[in-house]
Amino acid sequence: MKSLIEAAHQRIRPHIRRTPLEYDLQLSQRSGANVYLKLENWQLSGSFKLRGVMSKVLAVPTEERSQRYFVAASTGNHAAAFAYTMHRLGLRGKVFLPEGVAPAKLSFIRSFKVDYELYGQDSLQTEIHARRYAEQQGAILVHPYNDPLIVAGQGTIGLEISEQLPEVDSVIVPVGGGGLISGIGGYLKGLRPDIQLIGCQPERSPEMYVSLQKGHIIEESITQPTLSDGTAGGIEPGAITFGYCQQYMDDLLLVEEPEIAEALRWSIQNRQMIIEGSAGLSIATLLREKMQFAGKNVVLIICGKRLSWEKLQKIIKEG
Amino acid sequence: MKSLIEAAHQRIRPHIRRTPLEYDLQLSQRSGANVYLKLENWQLSGSFKLRGVMSKVLAVPTEERSQRYFVAASTGNHAAAFAYTMHRLGLRGKVFLPEGVAPAKLSFIRSFKVDYELYGQDSLQTEIHARRYAEQQGAILVHPYNDPLIVAGQGTIGLEISEQLPEVDSVIVPVGGGGLISGIGGYLKGLRPDIQLIGCQPERSPEMYVSLQKGHIIEESITQPTLSDGTAGGIEPGAITFGYCQQYMDDLLLVEEPEIAEALRWSIQNRQMIIEGSAGLSIATLLREKMQFAGKNVVLIICGKRLSWEKLQKIIKEG
Repeated sequence: MKSLIEAAHQRIRPHIRRTPLEYDLQLSQRSGANVYLKLENWQLSGSFKLRGVMSKVLAVPTEERSQRYFVAASTGNHAAAFAYTMHRLGLRGKVFLPEGVAPAKLSFIRSFKVDYELYGQDSLQTEIHARRYAEQQGAILVHPYNDPLIVAGQGTIGLEISEQLPEVDSVIVPVGGGGLISGIGGYLKGLRPDIQLIGCQPERSPEMYVSLQKGHIIEESITQPTLSDGTAGGIEPGAITFGYCQQYMDDLLLVEEPEIAEALRWSIQNRQMIIEGSAGLSIATLLREKMQFAGKNVVLIICGKRLSWEKLQKIIKEG
Repeated sequence: MKSLIEAAHQRIRPHIRRTPLEYDLQLSQRSGANVYLKLENWQLSGSFKLRGVMSKVLAVPTEERSQRYFVAASTGNHAAAFAYTMHRLGLRGKVFLPEGVAPAKLSFIRSFKVDYELYGQDSLQTEIHARRYAEQQGAILVHPYNDPLIVAGQGTIGLEISEQLPEVDSVIVPVGGGGLISGIGGYLKGLRPDIQLIGCQPERSPEMYVSLQKGHIIEESITQPTLSDGTAGGIEPGAITFGYCQQYMDDLLLVEEPEIAEALRWSIQNRQMIIEGSAGLSIATLLREKMQFAGKNVVLIICGKRLSWEKLQKIIKEG
């Protein structure tokens, strides 16, 4: 996995931002750890997802790339990364979105002049349709996580951390489908197995947590609405990320909604930084588990910035 | 001035962030210009002010630096930049703050373990006291704008823009004391006099605007409360920035409060980016003056991120 990630790093580095790893004085003082934030909310498309998409698309040989058609299904950060990539590299592709997609998300996607199509009642239906469409049309499916090239792209975050903070002790990573933590773990555990890798997931959408407990990917939906919509939803049967999570993750913690809201408010009040709910998971986990991180060099993955106006209004009003 | 700025650039570059110049698709589509944002809100201390402070402090020879005492007066971005610099370089200094300073601002300054003292009823009283204190104690005063070394530090933004976008046509710059626009103008006009330099100021604190009309720095206070508190307040008699503004600025426009609020909301809704009122001036100016910028490569200076929780709540509520 480590060499796959090094190859992805070479491919994508001219097209992505090497995001800062910023020491946070206030979180360090509050937790007793040396806390660093990996600011993927400053990534060019607004989240880490760009790394995976670029890794996948740039692995297609140049002359073939311009002749192929790319397909993705998502309403959130993955769609934004895909639309950005198509626009930026001048490629042709289509995003499938569920029929109930919020107008703001749709208009954002449309601004990149990428093709799009509304299909299905929920994101799983949309994903299945996109996969079938890609197979029928001979298009290249860009999956949000279930693809070694996507995982390798996310893993470049681990590579950057190892350069920015060689003495890292622990990394706290939001977990949804598991692509992000699989990539980061794939690099850092390959480099130094003693680096601690802590996952975090919203208590209201604990698919990976329950799957790990049961020893297999669960098929039933157990997702309730959560501020951390970026990590919410089921895991595709047979997803490669499940095995990586079993292998690399030292622990997986569940975070409650008020903790997420508090973390988002902290970010706004102290750093004037809007972050998405999933990014709040990392901060909330640090603050709850102070004891185990005290004295360590801890990196929190701030995975993205996309917070809806409605969620922002609610968080601010309750603060 | 240009060579002063090049020297400042060499001094400060290891200590500041070279901020991105980011193309904004949506503002470009709305205005018909090619719009780029210079993201000084991502500067290490949260605003461009760090450049000036670092330029001033690092101009003191190394062995002398650690033996001297530094002094500044401010409650806002300049104080944050000063406190950050003292902390980061391990120097000794004191910030003077007006007695009515907001608790949030005070606790932010205190987190850097810098000395501070409350003095005076408004910022002018505090500034005068700081200058007198520095003279009596043989300390080095770090002024927010009235100092060639400070202006040269801010001018490094112009140098970076010339490297990031050599074909720049126009730059829109928020104006308070005038340090920022003096520096940027000093570099870019020295490089290519046809680069258009547009200043913008809140209509509720138009000190530089009125001073330029009268041909001299006005002494009476004409500041009313404004969202753009970063640019508000009087100009020190004899300030060197006045002459630079006369020399370099092609136009200075006044912006009304609802325009500033709208610009701040735009930034939050479309970029998930909290910016301060002064930074909203640049966006508001572009959107009002679309006609004159159409087809041009326009850079908006996003000068900082510090927006109070109360102002943010108000803006979000009204949106």
